[in-house]
Amino acid sequence: MNIKKELQVSAIENGTVIDHIPAEYLFQVINILGLDKSKNSVTFGNNLESDKLGKKAIIKISEKFFEDEEINKISLIAPHAKLNIIKNYKVVEKKIVESPKKVVGIAKCMNPKCITNVEPVTTRFKVINDSPITLKCHYCEKITDHKHIEII
Amino acid sequence: MNIKKELQVSAIENGTVIDHIPAEYLFQVINILGLDKSKNSVTFGNNLESDKLGKKAIIKISEKFFEDEEINKISLIAPHAKLNIIKNYKVVEKKIVESPKKVVGIAKCMNPKCITNVEPVTTRFKVINDSPITLKCHYCEKITDHKHIEII
Repeated sequence: MNIKKELQVSAIENGTVIDHIPAEYLFQVINILGLDKSKNSVTFGNNLESDKLGKKAIIKISEKFFEDEEINKISLIAPHAKLNIIKNYKVVEKKIVESPKKVVGIAKCMNPKCITNVEPVTTRFKVINDSPITLKCHYCEKITDHKHIEII
Repeated sequence: MNIKKELQVSAIENGTVIDHIPAEYLFQVINILGLDKSKNSVTFGNNLESDKLGKKAIIKISEKFFEDEEINKISLIAPHAKLNIIKNYKVVEKKIVESPKKVVGIAKCMNPKCITNVEPVTTRFKVINDSPITLKCHYCEKITDHKHIEII
């Protein structure tokens, strides 16, 4: 019997499947999307076998379809995630999460002295690397690397 | 097609299934057991239909068998959870999580002035109610209710 297949969650009728999340970032993605507070039926799999990622995580949420703004947030943590939109048990749309060129108002600058951490100024970054994602602050020019990205 | 059945995670070959976790406490159980840092294949289902609980959560962990001390920790958050020990795809043992009569060194007293929060003294509680679980501190006699239980 194929253990990998056994551990995958079965099909959902309507909703969204987020696949190819790196295993170490599952709980960050859950937090960003607020899925720990969701009332929808949701299943998470972690440390599943993946040819591409070694170990991957997957999320399946019933009756939930994300806005682009929410997907942008995922891209900061799991830039290679893939979204499948499911209707009536069938994949009706696939979305690839792509790293944006700019990030405005989603992440926090890791420089505590940056004006965005002192005054009520919206953060603004240039994405200078997308794997792993690395942000350069428009204001203080300090680098916020992948491991330090904190979502607002 | 049965949606409920579809949302349950399929069988695991070897490991532990923790069933009948109240939906609102899934992430607390994950934290208590350290499953957010686990390298084992693990699946979580939340807000699944349950006759007993209305909505329930379930956890399936491959190749993991819990010590009694760990199970005691679960009982503080999910006193009616049931553990199934799986070997070769079969349930070889069932464990019911029971509220202990005393809790020593697992939870924190919610009274900030309690000696256990000031000096290096092991906490010690009498369980005065088990649904929802309510603890009475041996030292300061203050009550720590279910919603304020913080695991050490």
